[in-house]
Amino acid sequence: MDVAPPVDKKISGTKWAGIIRGEIQQKIVELTATGVRPPGIACIIVGDRPDSAVYVRNKETAANEVGMKAAVLRLDGATSQEDIIKQVNVFNADETIDGILVQLPLPKGIDERVVLGAIDPNKDVDGVGGPVHMGNLALRGCTPLFVPCTAKGCVELLKRENIKIEGANAVVIGRSNIVGVPVALLLQGENATVTVCHSKTQDIGSHLLKADIIVAAIGQPGYVKKEWVKPGAVIIDVGINQIEDKTRKSGTRLVGDVDAAVVEVCGRITPVPGGVGPMTIAILLQNTLESRLSKERKAEKK
Amino acid sequence: MDVAPPVDKKISGTKWAGIIRGEIQQKIVELTATGVRPPGIACIIVGDRPDSAVYVRNKETAANEVGMKAAVLRLDGATSQEDIIKQVNVFNADETIDGILVQLPLPKGIDERVVLGAIDPNKDVDGVGGPVHMGNLALRGCTPLFVPCTAKGCVELLKRENIKIEGANAVVIGRSNIVGVPVALLLQGENATVTVCHSKTQDIGSHLLKADIIVAAIGQPGYVKKEWVKPGAVIIDVGINQIEDKTRKSGTRLVGDVDAAVVEVCGRITPVPGGVGPMTIAILLQNTLESRLSKERKAEKK
Repeated sequence: MDVAPPVDKKISGTKWAGIIRGEIQQKIVELTATGVRPPGIACIIVGDRPDSAVYVRNKETAANEVGMKAAVLRLDGATSQEDIIKQVNVFNADETIDGILVQLPLPKGIDERVVLGAIDPNKDVDGVGGPVHMGNLALRGCTPLFVPCTAKGCVELLKRENIKIEGANAVVIGRSNIVGVPVALLLQGENATVTVCHSKTQDIGSHLLKADIIVAAIGQPGYVKKEWVKPGAVIIDVGINQIEDKTRKSGTRLVGDVDAAVVEVCGRITPVPGGVGPMTIAILLQNTLESRLSKERKAEKK
Repeated sequence: MDVAPPVDKKISGTKWAGIIRGEIQQKIVELTATGVRPPGIACIIVGDRPDSAVYVRNKETAANEVGMKAAVLRLDGATSQEDIIKQVNVFNADETIDGILVQLPLPKGIDERVVLGAIDPNKDVDGVGGPVHMGNLALRGCTPLFVPCTAKGCVELLKRENIKIEGANAVVIGRSNIVGVPVALLLQGENATVTVCHSKTQDIGSHLLKADIIVAAIGQPGYVKKEWVKPGAVIIDVGINQIEDKTRKSGTRLVGDVDAAVVEVCGRITPVPGGVGPMTIAILLQNTLESRLSKERKAEKK
C-alpha cells in the first residue's frame, strides 16, 4: 500500500497494537501489585546501522511504556561472534530477563543461526532462535512456547477483526523463517487451506485469485497486483519498503508489497505504515509477558 | 488405487525400495570392512496388535537383510508409560543402537508424544519424537538430522523418477505429523508451490485440479476422484486402507486414498500396495545408516 485505504476497508495495526499494549500494561500492573518483579527484555544490537538503531529504540520505548524492564546492549560492529554469544549467555543466566532479542541483520561474517541458536529457548521470545518453537508450531497437537512476532501479529489482526480463517483459502507469499513459514503454519493450525507462493512459483496470479486471505511478505514494493486479487479478499501486507518520493522532504516514503490499486477490489487491507509493523512490537511484548508469567506459574507450583 | 496401473504409469516403490536397500547394504559392507560395528536399530512394541506385529517383523527382517543389528523389545500391553520410557532410555544409552522406533499406536492411556519425546533426538530416526527435527525441516537454511520416513519416501520416489518438483504445483491432502506436514515442508524446500488440504478445506477439487503433483495421505479409501485430477498429474498415494472384498480368500484387500479410475487421467501413479509402503522401511534403514555414519564421522574428528 502506498496510500491510506478508506476507513471501512482499513485494518489498523496501530489501533490493535495500542489495545494489546494496554492489555499488557494492565497485566503488568496486576503482576507487580503482588510484589513480584516486572518482565524484563534484553536487546543486543551490533554495529551502527541507523535502521537497526531505530527498531531497537522503538522496542525499548514500547517495553518501558508497558512497565517492562528493558536492557539494551550496544556492541561495536567489530565484535566477534564468540563475544556476541558470551553476551547472549550473560542474559541467558540473568534471572531478571525473560526475553532476549538479537537485532538482525548482524554484521557480515557473523553466523546469525549460531548466534540466535545460543539464546535459551525459554527466553527466545522471537521464536526463531533454535528449531524447537518452529517444530512445535509445525507438529499438530503441540503448542510452541513462542511464535515469531510478525507472523503471530498477522494472525492476531485477522482474529481481532473477526475475519473467518477456518475453511478460508489463504495464500502466503514468501517463505522466510520469521514471517512466511510460521504464518503459513499458524493459518493451517486455524484450519485455513494454505498455499505458500515464492520466487519459484509459476503463474502466481492464478493462486492469488483463489485466495480469501492474502499475506504478502516478500519485500518487493507493490508486487501484488489488483488483477490478482479476488473481490472481497482480505490482505495482510507485511512489506515495509522504502522507495523514492521527491514530493517528500525526506525524499523517500514507505510502501508495502501490495500495489495501491488493490484497495479497489479487496475487502479489507492493512496499510503500510500502520498495519503489521506496530503489531510486531506488541506481540514481542506479549511473548515476553507470557515468558514472565510462565516462570511465575512454575514458581507457584514448587 | 485398487487395481495395478499400466506399466508406463506405475511408480514402483517396490523397485526403488529394493535399489535403496541394495545401496544401504553395500555401504554397510564397506563400513564393516573397516572393522567398525554395523548400524543398530531398536524397536519397541507394546501390546499384541497383529498389524503392529507385522510391521515390526517387516522392519526387523529388512534391517537384518541389509546387515544391520535389529533389537526388538516386545512389552506387555499393560506396561506403564513410565516403564516404556525406562526402556527407551536403555536404548538411548546403548552405544550399539543408532536408531530407536516406538511402534504406534501405543495402548490407550499412554501419551504417545511423551513416549516419543523421550527418544534421544540423535537416535530419533523416525524424525517425529521431539520438535527439533521438524523445526529444522521448517526453517529455511537448516537441515534436519532425520525426516519422517514416509514423507521422505514420497519425495525420494519423485526424485528417483526424475519428476520435476521445482516450480510444480503440489497439493498435499492431510496434515499429519508423520506424512502431511513433513511432506509439504519437503516439497516446499524443493521449490514446489505447496497447498495443504484437509478436512476443513472447501471445494477440494478446485485445489486438486491445479496440481501437477498430488500426495494423498488421509486414510480414506478411494477419496481422490478422477474428476479432480489434471491430465498428466503425478499421484503419490500414501493411503493403506483395508476394505471388504468377498472375492478374496481373506475377505479383504488393501486400497489407497485414490480412486481406481484416476489412472485413466493421471500421468504417473504409485500403486497400493507396492508404492509408498515399501519406501517407508527403506528410508528408515537409510536414516539409521546415516545416524551410524554421522557418529563415525564425529569419532574420526576427535
